[in-house]
Amino acid sequence: MPAPTRLDFTSDNVTGASPEILAALVRANEGQVQSYGGDPHTATLERLAEEVFERPVAILPIATGTAANALALSMLARPFEAIYCHATAHLMTDECGAPEFYTAGAKLIGLPARDGKLRPEQLAEAVEFARSMGVHHVQPAAVSVSQVTEWGTIYSREALAALAVRAHALGLKVHMDGARFANAVARLGCTPAEASWKAGVDILSLGATKNGALAAEAVVAFDAALAAELAFRRKRSGHLWSKTRFLSAQLNAYLKDGLWLRSARHSNEMADRLAAGLAAIPGARLVQPVEANEVFAALPGPVTARLRAHGFRFYDWPSPEEESTSVVRLVTSHDMKASDIDAFVEVAGKSSQQGAAK
Amino acid sequence: MPAPTRLDFTSDNVTGASPEILAALVRANEGQVQSYGGDPHTATLERLAEEVFERPVAILPIATGTAANALALSMLARPFEAIYCHATAHLMTDECGAPEFYTAGAKLIGLPARDGKLRPEQLAEAVEFARSMGVHHVQPAAVSVSQVTEWGTIYSREALAALAVRAHALGLKVHMDGARFANAVARLGCTPAEASWKAGVDILSLGATKNGALAAEAVVAFDAALAAELAFRRKRSGHLWSKTRFLSAQLNAYLKDGLWLRSARHSNEMADRLAAGLAAIPGARLVQPVEANEVFAALPGPVTARLRAHGFRFYDWPSPEEESTSVVRLVTSHDMKASDIDAFVEVAGKSSQQGAAK
Amino acid sequence: MPAPTRLDFTSDNVTGASPEILAALVRANEGQVQSYGGDPHTATLERLAEEVFERPVAILPIATGTAANALALSMLARPFEAIYCHATAHLMTDECGAPEFYTAGAKLIGLPARDGKLRPEQLAEAVEFARSMGVHHVQPAAVSVSQVTEWGTIYSREALAALAVRAHALGLKVHMDGARFANAVARLGCTPAEASWKAGVDILSLGATKNGALAAEAVVAFDAALAAELAFRRKRSGHLWSKTRFLSAQLNAYLKDGLWLRSARHSNEMADRLAAGLAAIPGARLVQPVEANEVFAALPGPVTARLRAHGFRFYDWPSPEEESTSVVRLVTSHDMKASDIDAFVEVAGKSSQQGAAK
Amino acid sequence: MPAPTRLDFTSDNVTGASPEILAALVRANEGQVQSYGGDPHTATLERLAEEVFERPVAILPIATGTAANALALSMLARPFEAIYCHATAHLMTDECGAPEFYTAGAKLIGLPARDGKLRPEQLAEAVEFARSMGVHHVQPAAVSVSQVTEWGTIYSREALAALAVRAHALGLKVHMDGARFANAVARLGCTPAEASWKAGVDILSLGATKNGALAAEAVVAFDAALAAELAFRRKRSGHLWSKTRFLSAQLNAYLKDGLWLRSARHSNEMADRLAAGLAAIPGARLVQPVEANEVFAALPGPVTARLRAHGFRFYDWPSPEEESTSVVRLVTSHDMKASDIDAFVEVAGKSSQQGAAK
Repeated sequence: MPAPTRLDFTSDNVTGASPEILAALVRANEGQVQSYGGDPHTATLERLAEEVFERPVAILPIATGTAANALALSMLARPFEAIYCHATAHLMTDECGAPEFYTAGAKLIGLPARDGKLRPEQLAEAVEFARSMGVHHVQPAAVSVSQVTEWGTIYSREALAALAVRAHALGLKVHMDGARFANAVARLGCTPAEASWKAGVDILSLGATKNGALAAEAVVAFDAALAAELAFRRKRSGHLWSKTRFLSAQLNAYLKDGLWLRSARHSNEMADRLAAGLAAIPGARLVQPVEANEVFAALPGPVTARLRAHGFRFYDWPSPEEESTSVVRLVTSHDMKASDIDAFVEVAGKSSQQGAAK
Repeated sequence: MPAPTRLDFTSDNVTGASPEILAALVRANEGQVQSYGGDPHTATLERLAEEVFERPVAILPIATGTAANALALSMLARPFEAIYCHATAHLMTDECGAPEFYTAGAKLIGLPARDGKLRPEQLAEAVEFARSMGVHHVQPAAVSVSQVTEWGTIYSREALAALAVRAHALGLKVHMDGARFANAVARLGCTPAEASWKAGVDILSLGATKNGALAAEAVVAFDAALAAELAFRRKRSGHLWSKTRFLSAQLNAYLKDGLWLRSARHSNEMADRLAAGLAAIPGARLVQPVEANEVFAALPGPVTARLRAHGFRFYDWPSPEEESTSVVRLVTSHDMKASDIDAFVEVAGKSSQQGAAK
Repeated sequence: MPAPTRLDFTSDNVTGASPEILAALVRANEGQVQSYGGDPHTATLERLAEEVFERPVAILPIATGTAANALALSMLARPFEAIYCHATAHLMTDECGAPEFYTAGAKLIGLPARDGKLRPEQLAEAVEFARSMGVHHVQPAAVSVSQVTEWGTIYSREALAALAVRAHALGLKVHMDGARFANAVARLGCTPAEASWKAGVDILSLGATKNGALAAEAVVAFDAALAAELAFRRKRSGHLWSKTRFLSAQLNAYLKDGLWLRSARHSNEMADRLAAGLAAIPGARLVQPVEANEVFAALPGPVTARLRAHGFRFYDWPSPEEESTSVVRLVTSHDMKASDIDAFVEVAGKSSQQGAAK
Repeated sequence: MPAPTRLDFTSDNVTGASPEILAALVRANEGQVQSYGGDPHTATLERLAEEVFERPVAILPIATGTAANALALSMLARPFEAIYCHATAHLMTDECGAPEFYTAGAKLIGLPARDGKLRPEQLAEAVEFARSMGVHHVQPAAVSVSQVTEWGTIYSREALAALAVRAHALGLKVHMDGARFANAVARLGCTPAEASWKAGVDILSLGATKNGALAAEAVVAFDAALAAELAFRRKRSGHLWSKTRFLSAQLNAYLKDGLWLRSARHSNEMADRLAAGLAAIPGARLVQPVEANEVFAALPGPVTARLRAHGFRFYDWPSPEEESTSVVRLVTSHDMKASDIDAFVEVAGKSSQQGAAK
C-alpha cells in the first residue's frame, strides 16, 4: 500500500483548489476589465447561474460562507425579528455572531434535532410561542436549514419541501446554508433547482470553497429583484471585490460542465468507502447515516490514538447522544484518493499492539 | 507607435495581478494545510510584516480595502464616538457606509481640505467643538488619513507627524487608509516604518490589490496586542478565509524582495510621464501636484472627447475648485508601459480635426 | 418692577410642566389598568390624535425627542441608506449618534443653509450625486426637516410643500423633527394637518416636553399601517413604558382643548416681546427673524456680561455668519411672564455703568 | 367581605404609583432647574445611592427596565462576545431583542435551570465550550442573573456569591436584572450592599416601576468610573430626559426612608398570604417556592375558570415541568390589601357549583 498523501480529515477546507478552477483563475488574469463586477466573467456567471437553476436569479459571488450566510439572512430578517435554525447550526455556533452583525441584532433561535433536521411541527410551535408574546418578543421572519446538515445528513426533497411549505404558510422565508450544497445535490440525484427553489428555498448560500474553489461562494436569491439590495449590502460589508473577475472565474469553472457535482460525488464516494471500512472494525460504529462527505463515528480510544500516532488529523466531536467521548468527525474531500481512505482504514483496523509501533 | 494595450485609466483596479503574485498563488495550492490561518504561508507573512515594519505588529490579511478600513476603524471608535477624515475620503463617500456598519454607528465627520490633507489646527478645532457639546455629541476617538490622498497627493513625513502628534495629544488614535501606501513609500523614499508608525500611525490599511495583487489587503496594527480582538472582528464580518493561505501567499509575494515598491515606483513614473505629456498640451492643466499614480487634469472638452473616441476610459471628477466640468482623473498602474502613456498623450495632443477621425 | 422669577433663558426644557398636564398625570394614577399601552388613556390618545390631524395615524408616545427622532428615522432608512438634513440639525449634532444607532448605521448627510431651511434644489443635487456613485455610496432614502428650525425660523407652508414634493419625486420620505411643532403651528396659523401631512410630511416627531409636558413626545406616522413595526422598534429600544398611561395622560392633556397651541402662542409672544425690546437697545441686533420662541441676537459684550451678573442664563451660540462672538440664543417658554421678559430687557438696556452695580 | 378593589394579578405594573412618589413628582415641578441631569434632584439621587449602597457608584435614572438591562449589558459585552443568562430570562424572551440592539449584536446564550437559578458549574461548562471554539464562536464576557428570578425565587446570598466568584474567576462580569431587587432585599433581610456588590454584582438594573414608581429604574454601576461611558450610551439611546428631575425625584422618594423596602415587604407578605390561602384549596399546588411577590400555582381548571368569571385577571404560565396546562402566575403589588388577597382566595376556594354563579 502506498503512503497516504492525505492525512488531514479535519475538514474539506484544508485542501487546495481543483486544477480546473486554478487554471480558470490564471486565465482570468489577462488584460484590463471593468472593476466591481462589470467584467465579462461576472456576466458569464450570471448567465450560467440561470442555466444551472433554470430561472432568473440574483447571484453575488463572495469569498466566504460566513459572509454568504450573514448577507443572505440580512435580506430576510429585520433587527426585531427572529431566524430559526438548528441549535448547533454553523451560523449559530461557528460564525462568531456574523448573522447578528449583518442583521443588526436579529435573534437566532436554535431548535434541537438529533439528526440535524428541523421538523415542520417544531418550527410551528416555536413561531406560535413567539407570536403569542406580542411586542415583547422578536418576531418570526425566517428559518435557515443546513443542507448538508451539521450531522452530515441530507434533507430528502420531501422533508425539505414539507418544512418550507409550513414555513411559508407561517409567513417565514427559507434560507439554505449550502456550504455543501453540491454534496447534497449529488447524493439526492436531482437537479439544483429541485434541491433548492422548487423545494421552497428562497435564498441559498452556495458553497464552492470546500468543494474545490480557492475562496468562492455565492449568495443566490431566487427572487431576482433582490439583486440591488444585495449589492448594496455586499459593498457595505466590504465583500465587493474590485477585481471581481477573480471570484467569478472560480465559480464559472466550478459550475461549468458539472465540475462541482463530479467533485462532490467523488467526496461522497470517499465518505462511503470510509464508512464501510470503519463499520467493519470491531468496536467502531457510525453514529449518523453517512449521506454526504462526512463520517461521524464512535471509535474505540486505542483506534483514535493509533490513527493520530500515524499522523492522521480529525476532530473529536461533542455528541450529546453518546456516553463515549470518542466520537470523531472525518471529512473527505474532492482531492482524496481511494488509497488515502484505505490507508486510514488500514491503520484504524490494525490490532492495537501494532498501533503504537509507528 | 504601437497600438496601446492599456486603454483604461479609470482606476488601478482594472488590471490583473503581477506575474510574481499569480505564480505564488499557484504554488500555494499544493497539499493540505491547516485552515483559518494556521498555515505556513500565514506564519511567513507574520514574520515578513515584522521585518518590513521593523517591529512587532498584528497583521491580518483580508480581501478588500473597504473591509480593511472598516475593520481597522472598529478597533478605534466605540459607537458613540467620532472619526475625523477628509470630507471626500474614500471611507466617507465610497464605502457605502462600511465604517458605520463595522463601528456599529460611530460617526464620520468630514473636514475640508483643498489638497486632500488634513491640518493639525482644523482637527483641533473640530475636537474642541465636539467636547464642548458634552453628552449630546459623539466624542472624538480617531482621525483617518488617506496616504496617498483622494487628490493623489502625499503627506510629507513632517506633515503627517505633525498631524499625528496633535491627534495623540488630543487623545485620538491615528488610522491610515493606505490603499496606495506603496506609492507613497516609493515617492517619499523612506522606509515603511518611517511612513507609518514612526510618523504616528497606530493602525494601517495596507493595500495590495491596486498594486498587483488579485485581492489582498491587510490590517496592520502597530500594537501587536490588538491581534486577538482583530481576529474576532474579522471572523464576525465574514472576512476570515478558510483557505487563508491564498491571501497570505499573495501578500508574501507582494512584500518579498521589494516587489511592492518596484511596482509602485513604476506606476508613479508612468503618472509623472503622463503629467509631463499633458502639461505640454495647449489648454491642458494639472489641477493637483502629481505625487503618486494619479493625474488630475483640466482638459479641454475636445481633448476628452477625442480620447474617448479612441477608446480611452477615465472618469470626470467633481472639482469644487474648478468652473470647468472637464477635470478628469487618470490612474496609472503597475502593468502600464511607457508606450501606453505615450499613446494616450499623443491622442490627447492631436489637433482637433484629427481627433474626430477615428 | 417686580423681581423676575424666570432667569433662565438657556432652553425651554428648564421649566416644569403646565398645571393642566401635571393634574392629568395625578388623575391617571388611579386604579389598576392594563400595562404596555392597553390602558384607556392610550386609547383616548389614539382617538385624539386622529381628531387633531384629521386622519388615521399611528401615534406612539415616547419620553424624549431624541428617541422620537431616531425611532422615526429607523422607519425610513435602511442601514445602507442616507438621510439628508441641515448641517447643524439637532439629530446631526445634539443626539450623540442616536439616528445612527437606531438605523443601524444609516448616514446623515448635512446640507448647509444660512437660515436653517433646506431648499429643493440643494436636496436634488445631493441626491443626484449619491445616485451617480452607484453601489459605492449610501443611497438616498429620506430628508429630515426641523420645524421650528435650528435658527428659530419656520418653513412657510409653501416652502415646506415645495421641498416635500421634490423629495417625494426623488423617491425620498419626509421626516419632520417637530420638537417645537406647536410653536410652528401657532405661528403659521394653520391646522396641524396643514402643517404636516398636507404639506407632505410622512412621519412627525411631535414634541411636548419643551412646551409643558414633564417628559412626553410622540412619533406620529401618517401611514397608520406603520403602527406595528413602530411598536416593535419602540419596545426593542426600551421606550415602551409598562405604565404607558403616564405618557398618554400627559399628551391627552396637552392636545385637549388646544392647550398645546395656547402654550406655544404664549411662548412665541414672549419671544416677540423680547425681540422688540432687544432691537431697541443700541448695538444690539437680531441675527435671524424671530418666528417662534427663540431669539438669536448679537449683543454687545458689556450687555451679556451685565445680564449674567444679574443672574440671567443663556448660551453663546456659534454663528458662522458673524464676526462677533457675542451672538446669544434666548429661549422663552410656556411659563414665562411678560414681567420676566421686561426684567431681562431692562437689565440689557441699562447704561453700562449701572450694569456692573449688582 | 368587602368587594375587592384589586382584581388584576397579571403583573405588578398594572398599579399606579405610591402616594409618596407621586407627591415628590408634583413637588419637583416647581421652578426652573438645569436640564439633562444638572438639577438638584439628580444630585440628591447620586448622594442617596451612595448611602444606600455604602460606596461610590454611578447611578443613571432611566424610564424602563428593558432600557436599564440593555444599557447595562452594553457596558459588559462587545459585539463579538456572549452574555449567559437563564433560558427564559426577561432579557432573553421579553425585551424584543433590546440587549442585542444595545450591544450591537452580542449573543445571549440561555442556560436551563428548573428554578430560575444558574449554577456555577453550568456556567463554567458553557464558558469552556465557547473558548474551545476559538475565533469561530462569540467569546464569554458576562453573566446576567435575575434577582428575583423568572420563577419568583431568590438566590441566597451564598448561591449568588458562589456564582459571581466563579464568573469572575472565568473572566466574566456579573449583571443583575433587579426589576424586583427590592423584593429580594426585603426577603433576604440583608443590606442592599450585601445583596449586590458584596455578593459580586458588577452592575445592577435597579427596578422601581413595579414597586411604586410611575416610570423609573436605574442603572447602578459599582465601578463609579463607568459613569461617563454610561452617560454617552444613555444619551445615544434617547434615554436622557431633558427634565431629568422628574426621574430623579421618583427615585429619591423611593429610596428615601426605606419606602422601597416597606413596599416590597408588603408585596411579599401579600404573596405569602395568597400562597397560604391557595395551598389549602383541594387540588391546588404551588409549583415553586414563594419567595417574593409572585405565586406560581397549579390550579384545577374549574378554579381558574371561576376566578376569571369573577373578573380576576392573571396569566397562564408555560411550565415545562407540569403536564397540566393550568399553571398560573399571580403577582401581588405594593398597593394590594389583605382583603384583596382574601377575596381572591375565597373565590378560588368556593365549591364549583358556586363558581359559575356570578
